[in-house]
Formats: sequence, C-alpha cells, structure tokens
Amino acid sequence: MPVDSIDIPIRVRYAEVDAMGFLHHARYFVFYEMGRTELLRANGLCYADMEPQGLFYVVTRLDARYRAPARYDDELTLTTRTTKLSYVRVDHAYELKRDGALLAEASSTLALIDRTGRPTRLPDDLYDQLTGASAASVSQS
Amino acid sequence: MPVDSIDIPIRVRYAEVDAMGFLHHARYFVFYEMGRTELLRANGLCYADMEPQGLFYVVTRLDARYRAPARYDDELTLTTRTTKLSYVRVDHAYELKRDGALLAEASSTLALIDRTGRPTRLPDDLYDQLTGASAASVSQS
Amino acid sequence: MPVDSIDIPIRVRYAEVDAMGFLHHARYFVFYEMGRTELLRANGLCYADMEPQGLFYVVTRLDARYRAPARYDDELTLTTRTTKLSYVRVDHAYELKRDGALLAEASSTLALIDRTGRPTRLPDDLYDQLTGASAASVSQS
Amino acid sequence: MPVDSIDIPIRVRYAEVDAMGFLHHARYFVFYEMGRTELLRANGLCYADMEPQGLFYVVTRLDARYRAPARYDDELTLTTRTTKLSYVRVDHAYELKRDGALLAEASSTLALIDRTGRPTRLPDDLYDQLTGASAASVSQS
Repeated sequence: MPVDSIDIPIRVRYAEVDAMGFLHHARYFVFYEMGRTELLRANGLCYADMEPQGLFYVVTRLDARYRAPARYDDELTLTTRTTKLSYVRVDHAYELKRDGALLAEASSTLALIDRTGRPTRLPDDLYDQLTGASAASVSQS
Repeated sequence: MPVDSIDIPIRVRYAEVDAMGFLHHARYFVFYEMGRTELLRANGLCYADMEPQGLFYVVTRLDARYRAPARYDDELTLTTRTTKLSYVRVDHAYELKRDGALLAEASSTLALIDRTGRPTRLPDDLYDQLTGASAASVSQS
Repeated sequence: MPVDSIDIPIRVRYAEVDAMGFLHHARYFVFYEMGRTELLRANGLCYADMEPQGLFYVVTRLDARYRAPARYDDELTLTTRTTKLSYVRVDHAYELKRDGALLAEASSTLALIDRTGRPTRLPDDLYDQLTGASAASVSQS
Repeated sequence: MPVDSIDIPIRVRYAEVDAMGFLHHARYFVFYEMGRTELLRANGLCYADMEPQGLFYVVTRLDARYRAPARYDDELTLTTRTTKLSYVRVDHAYELKRDGALLAEASSTLALIDRTGRPTRLPDDLYDQLTGASAASVSQS
C-alpha cells in the first residue's frame, strides 16, 4: 500500500518572515509544495523526473486557513496528505504545526498537463505506483 | 464615497516564474497584497503608516482559483475589490487578467490585530474613511 | 546610438521586507534583473523572446554594496547601465536611490549560454542592435 | 574554541528555480543567510534571540561568483565560514557544492546596528562566546 501521508520538518528562514516577524502568508504554499515533493518521493517517485517526461502538475485551486503565526527560526512540522487521486488530478490536504499546535491548514487541487499545456493522464505505471493498484509497482521505489 | 475597487498593472518578473515558465502559484498572493496596498492608498490611507500605529492586518483565509498561466514579462491587470468591511476584519476579491482574459481569481479575509497579536478594532476615523460613513473624513486624503 | 542606461521606478512590496522592516538584501538582485530587462527593451529587444531562441543570459558574478536600508512602500529609482558588452558576456552597474540618496550599488557579469548550457555568441543582428554598430539595426526597435 | 565553519545540507525547492530550471541567482543569498544562522547556533547563539535584544546584523557587502547551476531537487552542501570577527562587524565566506563539485562561492560583510539603525557593538559575553576569548563563555551553549 502506498504512502498517503507524510510529515516533514521545516525551519522558518529569516528571508521568509515579514515586517511583523511572521512567516509571510504566501510562503506557506512553498512549504506545501515541498510536502508534495516528499510525498511523491516516499512513494518512489521524483517530481524532478516527471517534468522531463512531459508530466507537469499545475495548481488549479488553493484554500488556506491561518490560525496562528509562525516566526523566524521556528521548527515546524508539515503533514501532507493525498485526499483524492485520479489519472488527471490530485487533491492534497496540509496541516502545519509547531509543538503540536495547529498554525495553518490548507487544501489544493493539481491538474496534470503536458508540455503544450493541455490536460494529460498519468501513465498507468505511475498511477499504479501512487494508488497501490499493483503491489509490484510499489516495490519499485 | 470611498473607492472600493482598483485596477493596477503588474508586469511578471523573471524571478517570479518557475521551471515551467509560469508565474509560480505562491506569487499571486504577493500581487494580491499589492492590490490591497493600492486600494488603501486610493482611499487616502497608507498601510505603511498603520503598522507604526499598532494596526496590523493579518491574512486568516485565502481561496484561490487558477484558470490559465501567466508568463515572464506578461503585462497583467489586477482588480482588487473590497467585498466586506467591518471594524475588525475585511474581505477582498481579486481578478487577474491579461488582455481581458481571466487568469486567476481569489478571495481573502484579513483580521486586524495589535502589536501583541490580539484582535483590535479600526479607529473610527479610519473606519469612516474606508466606508465613507463621513464625507468629511474621506476628503482628508 | 543604443540606450546604455535606464532609470526605472520600483515600489517596495510588503512581501519584500524582512523582520527589521528593511528590503531584504537578496531582493535587490530581483530589482537589478528588472533593470536589465527594461534596458534590453529600451534597445528594442525582449529577453522573453531570447530564451525561446536558445539564448540564455546567466549571472556569473555579482558584487553588491549596501549603504542605507529601503523600507516597505518606498518609491525607489533604479539606474541600470551597461558597462561592457561583447558577443559572449555583458557587464552592468546598478544604483538604487530614494529621493536622490544612494541606498545601494552593485555590478554584475552575465554570460550567454545555449540550451545545453554551453557558452554561445550573440547573433550579429542582436549584437549590432545592442552596440549600435549598425544604425539600420537600431531603428528596428 | 568556537566553531568557525559549518556544513549544512540544502535541498533546492521547486519555487527556487527559474525558467531555465536553475536555482535563481538571488536565492543563493537566502542559503548563505541560513548558513550564518546555523553557524551562530553551533556556537550556542540564536539570532532569533539577538534582534529582541536590539542587535541586528545587516549586510553591507556581498561578492558572489557562480560556477555551475544548481537545479530543482538537488541536494547541496553549503559551507559557511567566519573569516573575520570584530565587535562591530563580521565577514563570512561561503562555498556551495553538489557531490563535492563547487557550484558557487561568495563572501559577505555584516555590520551590527541597534534598533535605531545606528552602529553598535557586540556585548562582551557574545563576543567572547563567538571568539572563544573565554572558555567559560563558550560552554554556556
């Protein structure tokens, strides 16, 4: 069975906070993107290898809620979870915490496009690897 | 009557696009923030003067939809509109277009906090200036 | 004769300042890059059209001095000047000012590479256009 | 004796590369800043605690050379070294490598200022801790 959730540690960089001393709201999405990269890697896939194959995931939807600020040098934990996966899109949910306290949560939808910008489908082997449709493919990682 | 919508031109910078050549999805929020700054200015207010007075607007909600990519050097038009304003929060809606074609839209909620991070209220004069409650205050700009 | 220096106005964005309230030192280079884009444009060239032709300018050297901080919402003037131009590289000098006061200065070297990352040469028509070697080519802009 | 050099691993984020697929030249400085943070930490100091005490390190000089590009998802090693330290300023040197190959190197000067922006001096205990002038102070970490 594939990995559908992953926790990664992230330390807030000085360049990421704003004049209030808070992690700037736009930079959470950079963290969420890191979460997706690591979730793919935990399933034996490398997004850096997908683009050269003409497979591009583009964000089509983002919904974010901010509960409490993060600050410079904070050590955060980001949980990234796949909530829905099809051949043509994928949904994720995110929770960003500090010492167990929820700071922010978000969800996103990504669509798969090809080099020309047109919608495309995940090849069967990648789909199987991500969904665990085939036990064999998962063990390729 | 105060200004409740403003259009600003934005040219996409090289550093803002990603490996696909598209404006990175996190950077749209930097544009939306610029729209809010200019909408305040059009109402005779300067956000740069609010923080020293202990008035900080923090983002609590962002919902974004991406329709089509923007690219390096594109000349875009961002429309920022106040959709709801109270003493303690403000909602905005955004539309980002290129040559009249909608590329992205979003909405946000900001809450007003003080220097200690606690919710606070807009002073009456600023509230009046932003809502047009008092004709006199608006002409102060 | 081609344009070898250009002034552009830049307003500091909220997302560009740090916890001190100062424009973060790394973001000056994004401004300098904008200056190069506009200097090319003033010479009738568009960098956005060069990359699809396989002409990529990469930074090989940056030297920067910071004299005084810039802050959120400051209106700055950036002067970008070509100090040396050959078929394979170009040097620039930058001055960033607020109300005539020098805040920062820098210089850079860019090398021209092709799609494979190998050094390449400017085509004659572009070189002529940038150096004014041929009056005819300059008027193409 | 204090720690005067530190290696940290950095993985290049998707949002950090440009349309060429290369780590954008401005973002190297964000990495160098991370190196400085970790070098302080290795000496028992936390920069996040210095600013609330009114001690702000501001960059006054940056000199950077770029040898070869870094790409999305690359695992890099950054070496940050203190090359000169006084009560009022500090110089660092940086080397960024991938699998032992040098991609970029740089050096910087930072000056210490107070809350009002005026030059200030490191308190003796911090200076001793960073220079190893006093064995006792170093063991405070």
